[in-house]
Amino acid sequence: MPIVTIQITREGSTPGASAATAEEKAALIKGVSELLLDVLNKPLDSTFVVIDEVDTENWGRGGLPVEQYRRQQNSGSPE
Amino acid sequence: MPIVTIQITREGSTPGASAATAEEKAALIKGVSELLLDVLNKPLDSTFVVIDEVDTENWGRGGLPVEQYRRQQNSGSPE
Amino acid sequence: MPIVTIQITREGSTPGASAATAEEKAALIKGVSELLLDVLNKPLDSTFVVIDEVDTENWGRGGLPVEQYRRQQNSGSPE
Amino acid sequence: MPIVTIQITREGSTPGASAATAEEKAALIKGVSELLLDVLNKPLDSTFVVIDEVDTENWGRGGLPVEQYRRQQNSGSPE
Amino acid sequence: MPIVTIQITREGSTPGASAATAEEKAALIKGVSELLLDVLNKPLDSTFVVIDEVDTENWGRGGLPVEQYRRQQNSGSPE
Amino acid sequence: MPIVTIQITREGSTPGASAATAEEKAALIKGVSELLLDVLNKPLDSTFVVIDEVDTENWGRGGLPVEQYRRQQNSGSPE
Repeated sequence: MPIVTIQITREGSTPGASAATAEEKAALIKGVSELLLDVLNKPLDSTFVVIDEVDTENWGRGGLPVEQYRRQQNSGSPE
Repeated sequence: MPIVTIQITREGSTPGASAATAEEKAALIKGVSELLLDVLNKPLDSTFVVIDEVDTENWGRGGLPVEQYRRQQNSGSPE
Repeated sequence: MPIVTIQITREGSTPGASAATAEEKAALIKGVSELLLDVLNKPLDSTFVVIDEVDTENWGRGGLPVEQYRRQQNSGSPE
Repeated sequence: MPIVTIQITREGSTPGASAATAEEKAALIKGVSELLLDVLNKPLDSTFVVIDEVDTENWGRGGLPVEQYRRQQNSGSPE
Repeated sequence: MPIVTIQITREGSTPGASAATAEEKAALIKGVSELLLDVLNKPLDSTFVVIDEVDTENWGRGGLPVEQYRRQQNSGSPE
Repeated sequence: MPIVTIQITREGSTPGASAATAEEKAALIKGVSELLLDVLNKPLDSTFVVIDEVDTENWGRGGLPVEQYRRQQNSGSPE
């Protein structure tokens, strides 16, 4: 009876999208449920999936909000 | 000093409601805090409760987003 | 399809017990599942409960590990 | 920069195993990281995965500890 | 490779603010990442931080929604 | 009334240590509670901290269990 929580930033993966689409979310739910079936033999019906979308200003890495972190990485400045 | 996290889908439990009401949330907070007091003798004051409302398209079961899962269950089709 | 996570310190609620007993855990699971049924009309079968026991040295309050915090509270020293 | 948390009961999926094996865990980590790459174009390197193994007496469903719940399901008694 | 989750109520810390500001969030991300570096020698780059803002009606303490709890504390009524 | 969850791998930060020490944990609890006080004016007493130690085989990055990931990074092989 697995529970899978997927935390992602709230932003699009394609131009023009501002967040993961319903289709992308459905693909995550399907994929991870099938993974639990394949690897641990957990019935699809017993796996719960929760997708948690986090605003980019609420996500940090490298001591910085994620958008600043990415700009820093891209600029080649030392970390 | 318990912490209780209650994750529910963001939808109403009664016709016309689109989410749990403030009264329902207060009843969850009261009920679960009293449960910890009754079962484990934890003072009410030391229990924190967080209710996390999850959009239905972000909640999966049976490999499907929850609304599709429910339609499938109701239609009697094999799982 | 609620998910309830109950985080408690790993310690007994009665003399001689070093952790919540299986009976106490069963009572938490039963109580919180019935609460979701009563308040939000969620079927018992669709509620998952996870109890997470946390070692006391891994739990902090008031800027202190919880056992130090309790000693400080009981000694009446200013916080 | 996704974070995926996979909560499973601490029990084996094959005879003689008392928990998921290191190989099964590695397969979960690989599979879910590749899923995020495929669906949302997240680089493998930016996905963190945490597997949280929960003792069966700490996992509840249907208002019961999970092992009791399974026995009830298998016995065909009304829920 | 630590993951730090900071759950706070969605409310301002200064007059006129209705939530933590982007600057306050950046200060939390910076501070906690540096703490992990100082205490456990974790490189800044390997620490992920997620800030989870919770509506006040979804946060409970003392068996009450947090705003009621605070009014009760301030009024000096017995808990 | 913040709740801070710090997830770290269960391993030592100094030679001979197999996990974070009680002193290191106390420093994390103190540091993060003071950070919430400094940045958001949250009283020390109202911040809860939970440290969650995760076995290295249960932690993944780059599609690999973390110890394999680190070896790969150090060997300079392409990711």
